[in-house]
Amino acid sequence: MTDCYDIVVVGAGPVGLMLSACLLRLGPYKIKHIDQRPFPTKTGRAAGIQARTLDVLQNLDLKHTIMSDNPGQIYEVAFWNASNDGRGIRRTGTAKTYPDYIDTRHPFSTILHQGRIEKIFLDDLRKRGLDIQRTSTIAGVRNEPCGEYPEHPLVVDLVSVNGRERSTVRTKYLFGADGARSRVRHLLGVPMLSKDSTMHVWSVIDGVVKSDFPDIQIKSTVHSSKGSAMIIPHGNNVVRIYAQMFPGKGQEPLTFATVPKIQQAVNEILAPYKVEWDEVEWHSAYRIGQGLVSRYTLDERVFIGGDACHTHSPKAGQGMNYGFLDAHNLAWKLHLVESGFLQRSLLKTYEGERKLVAAKLLEFDATYANLFSSRQPAGANKGTPNSEFVHVYKQNSFLTSGYGVEYPVNSLTWPTETSPSPNPTPLRTGHSFPTATVTRVIDARPVHLEQEIPFNGSYRIYIFAGKPATTSKAILDLADNLQAKSSIFRRYQRNIDISYEGRHNPHSPFFTFSLVFHAPRSTIEIQECLPDYFACYRYHVYADDREMSQGGEATERSAHVKMGFDADKGGIVVVRPDGYVGCVLDLSKGITSASALNRYFEAIVPGNEHDAVAARL
Amino acid sequence: MTDCYDIVVVGAGPVGLMLSACLLRLGPYKIKHIDQRPFPTKTGRAAGIQARTLDVLQNLDLKHTIMSDNPGQIYEVAFWNASNDGRGIRRTGTAKTYPDYIDTRHPFSTILHQGRIEKIFLDDLRKRGLDIQRTSTIAGVRNEPCGEYPEHPLVVDLVSVNGRERSTVRTKYLFGADGARSRVRHLLGVPMLSKDSTMHVWSVIDGVVKSDFPDIQIKSTVHSSKGSAMIIPHGNNVVRIYAQMFPGKGQEPLTFATVPKIQQAVNEILAPYKVEWDEVEWHSAYRIGQGLVSRYTLDERVFIGGDACHTHSPKAGQGMNYGFLDAHNLAWKLHLVESGFLQRSLLKTYEGERKLVAAKLLEFDATYANLFSSRQPAGANKGTPNSEFVHVYKQNSFLTSGYGVEYPVNSLTWPTETSPSPNPTPLRTGHSFPTATVTRVIDARPVHLEQEIPFNGSYRIYIFAGKPATTSKAILDLADNLQAKSSIFRRYQRNIDISYEGRHNPHSPFFTFSLVFHAPRSTIEIQECLPDYFACYRYHVYADDREMSQGGEATERSAHVKMGFDADKGGIVVVRPDGYVGCVLDLSKGITSASALNRYFEAIVPGNEHDAVAARL
Repeated sequence: MTDCYDIVVVGAGPVGLMLSACLLRLGPYKIKHIDQRPFPTKTGRAAGIQARTLDVLQNLDLKHTIMSDNPGQIYEVAFWNASNDGRGIRRTGTAKTYPDYIDTRHPFSTILHQGRIEKIFLDDLRKRGLDIQRTSTIAGVRNEPCGEYPEHPLVVDLVSVNGRERSTVRTKYLFGADGARSRVRHLLGVPMLSKDSTMHVWSVIDGVVKSDFPDIQIKSTVHSSKGSAMIIPHGNNVVRIYAQMFPGKGQEPLTFATVPKIQQAVNEILAPYKVEWDEVEWHSAYRIGQGLVSRYTLDERVFIGGDACHTHSPKAGQGMNYGFLDAHNLAWKLHLVESGFLQRSLLKTYEGERKLVAAKLLEFDATYANLFSSRQPAGANKGTPNSEFVHVYKQNSFLTSGYGVEYPVNSLTWPTETSPSPNPTPLRTGHSFPTATVTRVIDARPVHLEQEIPFNGSYRIYIFAGKPATTSKAILDLADNLQAKSSIFRRYQRNIDISYEGRHNPHSPFFTFSLVFHAPRSTIEIQECLPDYFACYRYHVYADDREMSQGGEATERSAHVKMGFDADKGGIVVVRPDGYVGCVLDLSKGITSASALNRYFEAIVPGNEHDAVAARL
Repeated sequence: MTDCYDIVVVGAGPVGLMLSACLLRLGPYKIKHIDQRPFPTKTGRAAGIQARTLDVLQNLDLKHTIMSDNPGQIYEVAFWNASNDGRGIRRTGTAKTYPDYIDTRHPFSTILHQGRIEKIFLDDLRKRGLDIQRTSTIAGVRNEPCGEYPEHPLVVDLVSVNGRERSTVRTKYLFGADGARSRVRHLLGVPMLSKDSTMHVWSVIDGVVKSDFPDIQIKSTVHSSKGSAMIIPHGNNVVRIYAQMFPGKGQEPLTFATVPKIQQAVNEILAPYKVEWDEVEWHSAYRIGQGLVSRYTLDERVFIGGDACHTHSPKAGQGMNYGFLDAHNLAWKLHLVESGFLQRSLLKTYEGERKLVAAKLLEFDATYANLFSSRQPAGANKGTPNSEFVHVYKQNSFLTSGYGVEYPVNSLTWPTETSPSPNPTPLRTGHSFPTATVTRVIDARPVHLEQEIPFNGSYRIYIFAGKPATTSKAILDLADNLQAKSSIFRRYQRNIDISYEGRHNPHSPFFTFSLVFHAPRSTIEIQECLPDYFACYRYHVYADDREMSQGGEATERSAHVKMGFDADKGGIVVVRPDGYVGCVLDLSKGITSASALNRYFEAIVPGNEHDAVAARL
């Protein structure tokens, strides 16, 4: 009589909420989502959403809600240093948040505090029928694969925070998104490998200010002779300021850093400029520490993510972003395994991918946080240490934007077969699929190709189909071979009515095709140009004609060229459901392309479970 | 003990709703808004929002809601003609909805039916505390300026549709937006000057379709040997089709055009393509007629707008647009008169401006509708009449986009003083202010200059300040002279705290300044570069640096150049609260510019009522 769930999520901060939000877009999953806090976060805490994360949230149809909340949008950062005369500070330069070479629709950081973020997710989950069970925590979990409920092998003991109510549920999976002091991590028994905390103490304060500091609406980093500070505008006239503090030995940061002390520190660091507080929303203080857990899962049943796995300095604005993407990475894999499309063993790639990128982040953060906290002596050589700080800041923009994340080669991510293009934002496996603006043929609408398919668990196969005259045979052959009896695409094919609602997946929820021709929109007649197999993707047929020259030639901004493909001959990109490139293939011979596609998918679908899969479809 | 209102609005279709939505953004107006229908429009009826109208709705902060409803977006139109063999139809060409020379952020028509539009407005009004009083109509109105309530001279008799409940209210103004058979127009006794209805009968049907017609998701105009049709996708998989009908003599269109008859006509016209209806949402039929009322107001107290003033064929998608802009034009004038900023006599410009543009629309519509209905004989010379139709269609894009609207010279619209630029979208008085993307200095954010100030009743004075070194003296002199004792700007100046909320109007709700420098953002130090008078507009200081060449020179896409100004010397534009250019001035001498600005505003503010104005402020 035990309640059975698909997943138990522990922790309703941004990371746990993200996992539930992802899963409820993928299927009607039965989720038990608990949190030990009686209320959601009201204000303060995590605040920065980086560009790549915003892409992901847009793909979940959440960007719209976030932007309508009028968040801060940081396009530039100003660097301030102690002035040469030793009195006060001066601006030494400014830089774009993301330099021009970063290919993004969102050339800014989006800033809104965790209270606003949690509310957006909680509203979304409530609309989808999920409420958080509050003041509950996890008391224990054990994996009983040979027990009474083999489909739900995990036995989870829950307990109310006051200890009075206890219950036990069964579940297929458990996700611990319960923060830096994660109870789930503790239950798993995996250690957090922490570097020693430095002695640097920082405070942070959010509120409405009046100030004559000229860059109060831009992100500013300040190194003064009195310590360092960072200013981050939050939109709606609210500003966050991080300020370095200098408590005596043995003093706890939180006890030492009272609001008046923080305000005083801010004004000392920013002098001769002044900040007056009309309202203080939140404040905190902390010692900078770094940690990375040794394992993200032991049995591919219990997983942890977010701060439970990795902690670091908040000032690079990365923590919530890496946590969001942990959850995003895990969600589609769980879904495809549960749908019978993905081998269970591939759940190991969650740790393989996410731990690697977290380690890289920590490497950057150690350098960055240390440089930020380095006290600048009055009258120091004006170039140092700010210039090194600026150098490190700029050099890591690709990483901090999120586009620098690169997943390692594994079954899901093949080494690139075709030679990548020489341009600075090439199509690379393990990276996110680049942006491309193309014209949808059916309604002549300019669209962002990378956002056309919502986060729905489907593999996205983009056929850059070049010049129709050049590729028509290859495309016919490709269609024929994808339908061959031995083809995995045939194995997973269902007969679906091509309704508007089902337009993304006429063949299978597992995969969807898109075709991009390098030809003017009006010359592409879907019913005449395409074999039936592809014509049923008529909502996914595009013209790469936005950046054509007058003569119809490709320019360097054409989607084909940007991807590194010949504008006549084209090529194929397999993009994972999370928007990362899985493999890049040639299109010149349809039969070869079909084999390569089959090889990629054969390597990831369950081996001996075909009958089971077929039965479920 | 009679209830007193600022305005009574009769009719809660799009035009009446627009007036209330505008007024409630301008002040806490007390509005009685009535409608004779028991319910709002559910579906069908008006559907097209043209680009300029969408700009206006965006300025009212309504675009966001409209676009989140996933409306149809029409980027192209396809022209279909009878094929040469006399059997069926063929596409003869396609064109962009708005050709490239039209300067717009919205290069598409937005399509959503009147039910969806009314709901958006009704939700907005409800949030602002206004509900519609339904099943009420107006029984009479008289102007008693010397009566008991001189401030509320109109006496309005209201009656419920069933005749049982009667009431009388007093009001300052009355707006009749009660459609083509306007009761208010009838009470005013102004005649509708109608052209004879043609014999052409059209039907219209909305619904969810399945079709093999290739352009079912694009706007398509079809001239076949069986009559003409037009297809308009509505988003969410709904399509509207207009089809020409041929009833016998004396048959009423609405009785003749049953759903099966319309569906049959559609399939005959589109043959060999087929349309199947999964769902029919709405249908109607009508005879094309045209009319223009002789007066829009008799006493500047009772006004009419929308279909009450002008009727024509629906297929150019203009009716609701002209109605919206009638209401928009009237709202800010009423507001400024009531605020003591505008002479009452300038309310006459409502008719002067809106009737003129309606007349121009009707001229186009007569030609267009007639060509559309011309039956094409099978096997006719293939060029005719479709090619003339296409010609007329394309030639009038500027008009149908809304940007072709030009208000005549009057006190609000001066003849242009500086020579306009030779580029195709110049700054012209009486036209809408062109688009310009600039960087906001305070937060480095790229913004759409033309949308920076919401519809709040303020005159928008844009100082294109060229190169700081060149214009600094002129700007200092301008600031000095605007503050001179004799200056109208000093007369209306209040001392307002420059809070974030009050950022648009630090001096007065009547006007607001914006300054655009042709210099890189990071070089503009607001506190150092600007006199205090302008520094308090710090949220309105911009860098025209988005389109600078590498060397810092202006390109033809720079905002200064686009406006027709020298990129070093700049110039001044006075934009009315509705976004239309009122006058264009020189900046080379600050004292001359200040005088010219004073002259413009002296000519429109109330003459002998200064004390009264001062008292109200």
